[in-house]
Amino acid sequence: MEFELTKEFRDRFQQALDERDTKFIVETLESVQPADISALLYEFNSEESKYVLDILDKEVQAEIIRDLDSDARKAFLKIYSPTEIATILNLLNSDDAADILHELPVKEREEVLALIETELRIQVVDLLRYEATVAGGLMAKELIKVRQHWTVNQCIDEIRKQAENVDKFYAVYVVDEGDRLVGRVSLKNLVLANANKAVVDIVEDEEIVSVETYLEDTEVADIMQKYDLESIPVVNVNGQLVGRITIDDVVDVIKEQAEEERQIMAGISEDVEEDDSVWINIRARLPWLIIGILGGLMNAKFMGLFEEELVRLTAIAFFIPLIQATGGNVGIQSASIVVQSLANPGFVVESLWPRLVKVFTVAMLNGFFLALIVFGANVLLFTEFELSLTVSLALFSVVLFASFMGTITPMVLNYFGFNPALASGPFITTLNDLLGLTIYFFTVNLLLL
Amino acid sequence: MEFELTKEFRDRFQQALDERDTKFIVETLESVQPADISALLYEFNSEESKYVLDILDKEVQAEIIRDLDSDARKAFLKIYSPTEIATILNLLNSDDAADILHELPVKEREEVLALIETELRIQVVDLLRYEATVAGGLMAKELIKVRQHWTVNQCIDEIRKQAENVDKFYAVYVVDEGDRLVGRVSLKNLVLANANKAVVDIVEDEEIVSVETYLEDTEVADIMQKYDLESIPVVNVNGQLVGRITIDDVVDVIKEQAEEERQIMAGISEDVEEDDSVWINIRARLPWLIIGILGGLMNAKFMGLFEEELVRLTAIAFFIPLIQATGGNVGIQSASIVVQSLANPGFVVESLWPRLVKVFTVAMLNGFFLALIVFGANVLLFTEFELSLTVSLALFSVVLFASFMGTITPMVLNYFGFNPALASGPFITTLNDLLGLTIYFFTVNLLLL
Repeated sequence: MEFELTKEFRDRFQQALDERDTKFIVETLESVQPADISALLYEFNSEESKYVLDILDKEVQAEIIRDLDSDARKAFLKIYSPTEIATILNLLNSDDAADILHELPVKEREEVLALIETELRIQVVDLLRYEATVAGGLMAKELIKVRQHWTVNQCIDEIRKQAENVDKFYAVYVVDEGDRLVGRVSLKNLVLANANKAVVDIVEDEEIVSVETYLEDTEVADIMQKYDLESIPVVNVNGQLVGRITIDDVVDVIKEQAEEERQIMAGISEDVEEDDSVWINIRARLPWLIIGILGGLMNAKFMGLFEEELVRLTAIAFFIPLIQATGGNVGIQSASIVVQSLANPGFVVESLWPRLVKVFTVAMLNGFFLALIVFGANVLLFTEFELSLTVSLALFSVVLFASFMGTITPMVLNYFGFNPALASGPFITTLNDLLGLTIYFFTVNLLLL
Repeated sequence: MEFELTKEFRDRFQQALDERDTKFIVETLESVQPADISALLYEFNSEESKYVLDILDKEVQAEIIRDLDSDARKAFLKIYSPTEIATILNLLNSDDAADILHELPVKEREEVLALIETELRIQVVDLLRYEATVAGGLMAKELIKVRQHWTVNQCIDEIRKQAENVDKFYAVYVVDEGDRLVGRVSLKNLVLANANKAVVDIVEDEEIVSVETYLEDTEVADIMQKYDLESIPVVNVNGQLVGRITIDDVVDVIKEQAEEERQIMAGISEDVEEDDSVWINIRARLPWLIIGILGGLMNAKFMGLFEEELVRLTAIAFFIPLIQATGGNVGIQSASIVVQSLANPGFVVESLWPRLVKVFTVAMLNGFFLALIVFGANVLLFTEFELSLTVSLALFSVVLFASFMGTITPMVLNYFGFNPALASGPFITTLNDLLGLTIYFFTVNLLLL
């Protein structure tokens, strides 16, 4: 049922492309879904891809281009003329058309805009002014809008009229004379209702959930998930219905959010994939590595202050990796738990103190346990009682401090409008390395020297 | 429009609860959506929550209990009798009822099963045999099934009959005499079609996308996203239609997957939230901390072998944090890029060599650049030319090795059926710490001593 892209298939297809074997291509792709053809195109160059697409139906072609990922599409459309792009956009929904226009260079965007159908142009121009990360940037203009005094029959007529433009819908939206949203009727209830009934009598959800154009995409995602909605109407500041967002767009938002967070945690500073160029890979990875290096140099300088002590008792140095690794691990654990609870609000936020008390209880117990293991192991491995005691005491303190830092940093970042996930990345590790070393040498100084 | 839970509101509500002020509670909650009432309940204890729910409509009550998170619900339903639980389940869809039954202790599950309505019981019993992580565990039995020779009018009659049971649907599924799935008709096309037309004439998607009961939930999520589906039919091994999965369940799968990955990256070994007990927090966090500690002890033992060298030139120790931190950062970056491309397949997987060549190119350039910075800084800060050169050379090698480890580890884990994300967590850091130290001391031995 699902199409699977194998190396054999790709090679056979490449051969057909080389031989311009149109018949093979048409026959092969007949039973393949457009979304799978999009995936296939990543395997060929732009000219070959265009050759394949030009063989297919215009509608299928448009769908495939819509499904390409943004970077691939940007590169691919370079070999298309404005007229060809306009033909494709005419077959797409307003939100997808606007996304593609956003990706074009300004001059070409203007040329394409001048060439697309008037109705779509009006819709798209309205959408282009929104940033991609707000409700206005996610919404499509295609929806079924009915007046509250209409009958069910009139609604169905309207659906018939709009059916060509709106390919997926789950409800009709009911508006008043001023175009203000007053409710919705699900398609199910429309099917079940008597044809002569007035819409106002079957309208659902007096408390209809809608979002305003300027709402952040992540908040739209939260609302749609919370209320289990497959689509949500978008209103402007006057409460007038201006578009709707469907769940498939929100799924993309959720996935991107998770990916962004993973990159932050891994210390990668821009969107990068394995098949991106060497240069993009380097650019994405160097910044946090350099910050780590600066932290490392500060560590070195700091240890330099204790050179004499280290000469006297070299074994002190043996436990630096242990102390720092544990501090790093504890810090990231703590931060990621806070980041998670910041991402899932909906509870009354407790005041800071009870949270910190709990963090400290956990840290004390974990720290105690780890210190005990290390003490036992050290006495056995190095048979130095005093040093073992010092290391364990320092370790215990480091667990406490790293927990505190890990808990407080994401809250502070969040408070100042930064992404709190930064606190589960190299940032907290670099800080904790320095902190761990300071605590360790302080303890050594106090107990050993 | 959206309800916001404030501290003031909670306190006022608590007061109403203490005074058993039913009137206030009913009036307050009238305009609040069930999903928001669920969130409110986390603020009160089980008895208070039940008191609130018992005031509300049975339907609303069922919806609220459905929306609670699994842990909270498990605790909450402890104060419900089997009869009360059965009443709630009778008002829910089969998939939600099965999820709740799964959470009950076996004895209570049997009691409740005996009390629910026959039709629901048959459906639920069929669902209970699937694990939560496969298509069968995600699906609901409620769907509109029509025969291919029916007319549109007969379909609408069937919808009318089923309307009470199926609260959300977007399409009717068309089956043959053997109950095998042959296609679907979207609700839109049903609305638009002539009432006397045969279903077989308006059936869409000859290539209808469906999934089999045993498919992994993450694969179901991938398919629904790829084809932008709001619902997908589930078939058994004979191709017979047995249920359907809606996009809201898949959104949950996607979120859980992202959360699980974050936990793995942060070295947290079980699902834990900030408001979980101290004990759960410790249990989730200790395992990876202990593994880190063992790595740290191995580091210490290894450095012990070089005690004499360290006594002769203590400054060697200064750069251990720098070497290890960089190795850790590089390793996590590399691993997370591979994890990401493993999570987004759909390309023909290139053979290993070209990938590794690229990884090494990036690593060489990054390593060279970092080594240069460190060399410059060291000459300035420590004015020791030979040591600076040694540190930079070791750093360069560590970047190469850590990149290699970070790239290969997730592939190996994935190959053996483990979650590759493990490679972006404390696992790779612990390994890289040891590796970094070994490379550093090897370089020191070669060049300095």
